[in-house]
Amino acid sequence: MSNKALVLLSGGQDSATCLAVACNSGVDSVQAVTFDYGQRHRIEIEKAQILADIAGVPIRVINAKFIGELSQNALTDFDQEIKQNPGELPSTFVPGRNLFFLSMAGVLARQAGIKQIYTGVCEADFSGYPDCRSDFIESAEQSINLAMETTIKIVTPLMQLTKAETVKLMSQHGKLPWYAQTHTCYEGLIPACGRCPACQLRLQGFKEAGVVDPLPYQ
Amino acid sequence: MSNKALVLLSGGQDSATCLAVACNSGVDSVQAVTFDYGQRHRIEIEKAQILADIAGVPIRVINAKFIGELSQNALTDFDQEIKQNPGELPSTFVPGRNLFFLSMAGVLARQAGIKQIYTGVCEADFSGYPDCRSDFIESAEQSINLAMETTIKIVTPLMQLTKAETVKLMSQHGKLPWYAQTHTCYEGLIPACGRCPACQLRLQGFKEAGVVDPLPYQ
Repeated sequence: MSNKALVLLSGGQDSATCLAVACNSGVDSVQAVTFDYGQRHRIEIEKAQILADIAGVPIRVINAKFIGELSQNALTDFDQEIKQNPGELPSTFVPGRNLFFLSMAGVLARQAGIKQIYTGVCEADFSGYPDCRSDFIESAEQSINLAMETTIKIVTPLMQLTKAETVKLMSQHGKLPWYAQTHTCYEGLIPACGRCPACQLRLQGFKEAGVVDPLPYQ
Repeated sequence: MSNKALVLLSGGQDSATCLAVACNSGVDSVQAVTFDYGQRHRIEIEKAQILADIAGVPIRVINAKFIGELSQNALTDFDQEIKQNPGELPSTFVPGRNLFFLSMAGVLARQAGIKQIYTGVCEADFSGYPDCRSDFIESAEQSINLAMETTIKIVTPLMQLTKAETVKLMSQHGKLPWYAQTHTCYEGLIPACGRCPACQLRLQGFKEAGVVDPLPYQ
């Protein structure tokens, strides 16, 4: 029985927390993967690499630019405004993104005999992304396993956690300093802008958790 | 209600049959998509384009080379031998291939307001590919729709047909001559070798259907 884990690392706060959980889960080894999908902020890829280095796990950067080429959205299309109209998916929604990420991770896991894939998706934060919900994850796990005759488990430690609970989880794992190397700001600013919806959500979480965010802000 | 269909066209016999079925299904318009995934035989892409031209439907060629880069197999890795050992998946199995194809088609369909995706997968021909079975297709359809909040239907007219029945279906649609422009041979030969497992399966199907294959053989 394989006892290895593969962590989807985006360079953000949630996937950094997942990495800490995976590293402390008692598995024999952890590997990370990050995807270059033509995202607006390439700093995310660098941050993922830095986080993997800090954790002492190997990381593979996968070229997934086809995702950005397939459709238009505000995360890969730099002249689109970031917005969310009532009743619509956010303009930052990248159609199929998590299905592609998980499927690619599934192929890599199969190659390496890995049975657990960690992802930091969360349905409790109401981001409005359908591919972050547990019903999607369960369906994707089934599709991947049926496609390749595998028995891979997709592990989602943050699925039901609020941002504050995620911060507390990281604190319990003793890895709060890792958050200084994460990227959240939708504006792509370093120090972070502190004003965009992503920064606001992050800061609110730390506030509710009673923890100081180690990330520099403007 | 949208009344458009997207056909996954590989340049092979099955997808050509699907194209004929879709064109005669009463939808307002048909589009085709083919994937450049670093396959052994690039002639497949040319054949898909020729078939789309004959049918009078637009075709998009999608760069999907990441699929071949993710894993090793005999269809994308030119120095691997084509073989199938008992109890193992065939060496021509490309892990995740149909999941990636359908997911990419899903994103394209969503963009274009298309609600039906046609694919020529078939579980009756015992090719040994798990991602050609109906349980996988049903799961993939659910995953794609959950991922993107869509209601796309994956249509599989050949799922339960033998090769002979597929040939008869094409005959019923009056498009047998299209088969002259398809590519099946695993050896990539034109005229086709007639000896590899793919050619043998094809010829057997025509024989059982009592129909002459219009494809030139060596």
